[in-house]
Amino acid sequence: MTQQRLDKLTASLTKGKLDAVILNPGATLKYLTGIDFHLMERPVVLFVTPNQEPVLVLPELELPKVDLFPYKIKHFAYGENPDSWDDVFRQAAQSLSLDGKKIGVEPRQLRLMEFRHVKAGAPEADFPDATDALAELRLRKDQDEVKKMQKAVTIAQSALEAVIPQIKIGMTEREIAGELVIQLLKHGSESEMPFSPIVCAGPNSANPHASPSDRKIQAGDLLVVDWGASYEGYISDLTRTFAVGEVDDECKKIYELVKRANEAGRNAAKPNAPCADVDKAARDVIEQGGYGKYFTHRTGHGIGMESHEAPYMRGDNMKLLEKGMTFTVEPGIYLAGKNGVRIEDNLVITDDGAESLSDMTRELKVIG
Amino acid sequence: MTQQRLDKLTASLTKGKLDAVILNPGATLKYLTGIDFHLMERPVVLFVTPNQEPVLVLPELELPKVDLFPYKIKHFAYGENPDSWDDVFRQAAQSLSLDGKKIGVEPRQLRLMEFRHVKAGAPEADFPDATDALAELRLRKDQDEVKKMQKAVTIAQSALEAVIPQIKIGMTEREIAGELVIQLLKHGSESEMPFSPIVCAGPNSANPHASPSDRKIQAGDLLVVDWGASYEGYISDLTRTFAVGEVDDECKKIYELVKRANEAGRNAAKPNAPCADVDKAARDVIEQGGYGKYFTHRTGHGIGMESHEAPYMRGDNMKLLEKGMTFTVEPGIYLAGKNGVRIEDNLVITDDGAESLSDMTRELKVIG
Repeated sequence: MTQQRLDKLTASLTKGKLDAVILNPGATLKYLTGIDFHLMERPVVLFVTPNQEPVLVLPELELPKVDLFPYKIKHFAYGENPDSWDDVFRQAAQSLSLDGKKIGVEPRQLRLMEFRHVKAGAPEADFPDATDALAELRLRKDQDEVKKMQKAVTIAQSALEAVIPQIKIGMTEREIAGELVIQLLKHGSESEMPFSPIVCAGPNSANPHASPSDRKIQAGDLLVVDWGASYEGYISDLTRTFAVGEVDDECKKIYELVKRANEAGRNAAKPNAPCADVDKAARDVIEQGGYGKYFTHRTGHGIGMESHEAPYMRGDNMKLLEKGMTFTVEPGIYLAGKNGVRIEDNLVITDDGAESLSDMTRELKVIG
Repeated sequence: MTQQRLDKLTASLTKGKLDAVILNPGATLKYLTGIDFHLMERPVVLFVTPNQEPVLVLPELELPKVDLFPYKIKHFAYGENPDSWDDVFRQAAQSLSLDGKKIGVEPRQLRLMEFRHVKAGAPEADFPDATDALAELRLRKDQDEVKKMQKAVTIAQSALEAVIPQIKIGMTEREIAGELVIQLLKHGSESEMPFSPIVCAGPNSANPHASPSDRKIQAGDLLVVDWGASYEGYISDLTRTFAVGEVDDECKKIYELVKRANEAGRNAAKPNAPCADVDKAARDVIEQGGYGKYFTHRTGHGIGMESHEAPYMRGDNMKLLEKGMTFTVEPGIYLAGKNGVRIEDNLVITDDGAESLSDMTRELKVIG
């Protein structure tokens, strides 16, 4: 299977007139090789070209991983002294005659460290952005991938269901987050989580990217839980918002708006609809409700091996949805200093619409 | 405290003749601000200059974090369309008159994405490597930092002690790793672990960077557990090796060698000794035992907020150890296709020597 993936990449290089791409540890490298490499202070780079065997540069202590490769590669290993690394990268680049050529990069993943070593080995090369060509590889999930994502959703939902009865007024956000991670593991998540759960209540819930704090949850808070699991390298990324005891009317109002926006976004998702339509459908509900300026982010993002990947559900993104694309729908309203709401589901585009992999209730549930 | 840290950085910029440094989410940014930012597809960059207020570029949805800053900053926020980001970076760079100047970078942390946005905003700037200047900031831990690291070690040790009685022949590496993560959380680790534990036995233990597999542990295996905890942003990173049932004489022999090498490395650590001495002391033991070529990595690395940071215990590193430096001593022997051993402790340099924060037994323990 990884051979087919490699063939698909090399075909796309030829089409995109690239002489190579370079990959460092991350989702694309894992997808193409099936092997886990660490992103660390020692660079690991795979050079893929259209017509030659891939070339891997790696530290000597990672040499056992060369035997795990599913296809033939050449490799160049370096020792522990960083001063020697440029030389090894030069040998690798020269073995592929890459100097002066077009070497595609993934700027979101590639660090300046790896880039500078490769550039030292091919100083006259150009390094065009190959993000779209590489995203294309993983954009449409096959049945096996969707099954793994469904499992990651099921694990996440069961874990939160197990935590909910334990949540009491007076617990801190951090305590709830800790218990949620334990339940995620007990329910079968891999220990490398897609991200640390966001558990935040009251004023903290009005910050879409809050970290769990030592604040105790109180009656009147909205409690936002944004969490996910990993299963065989695929992830889920969900959000549910709860009422802690009795909440005020504005909380109920913004909750209902976000719930309707989530539904509208899910309903707009289908083959051949632009990503922008999903964003617009959700945003319109919130704008018509008078809270447009408090919905401060796009409606969703692709998910799969990464917790944020293409396609992005943004108002300006005219990319058309296709069968097998998987992404979040997660509108929110954030009232600074007061409360926030977000409701997030994971969707897959089907033959004639979209299916939500997540089915946990979206009705406002009172806890504590 | 973060103000003092910022002052120390700006002083070092002046000394190093840098006009600025740029930081993206990671340990240095957390150290200087106390704030958690995500490393994601939306770039976050802090510009620090010697004489002006720091400037932050961030996505609009992260704006609530601006209020968390412990000192005055300017900020430039961008919307969800990536096509608009270069402009915002240009405004930020122009507000500091950075074009044509020297802007220090951390190539191991900074991605090509952030780098290219900053470069678009300051196309004539130079971007020298500021790794050493930035590492210097966090190189000597104060008492409070060492206390947090001690706590991270204590949590890790208690967690593994809780797992050991549960380990039985026939369990998979992955099952043991899952249980270890649960125990780490129960014993007080933050949910963002420093790294996923390595639990690997038999032939897998001969790969220093193996990922836990579905292989069942068997009598005769050596079982390597490389694990750590996080506590208030500081980490531990330990390794112990166990005998699963009865192991052969060569296993016992390499275990004893590594144990003696670990002890020699720890004993060589003291103020004013070069890092190379620690490596040499450990390596000599293994070389004299006839297994030198099977010790395929440096003897250790610095730890603190990151699980790998300066100083590095390498044979060519003449940097002198100083009070407050914290690092691992972790010699190993790896016999491909058979077994591996590693024993890793966490040390802090004291007034006249070094103290091991970890004290779990280093005698070969039979489990299963």
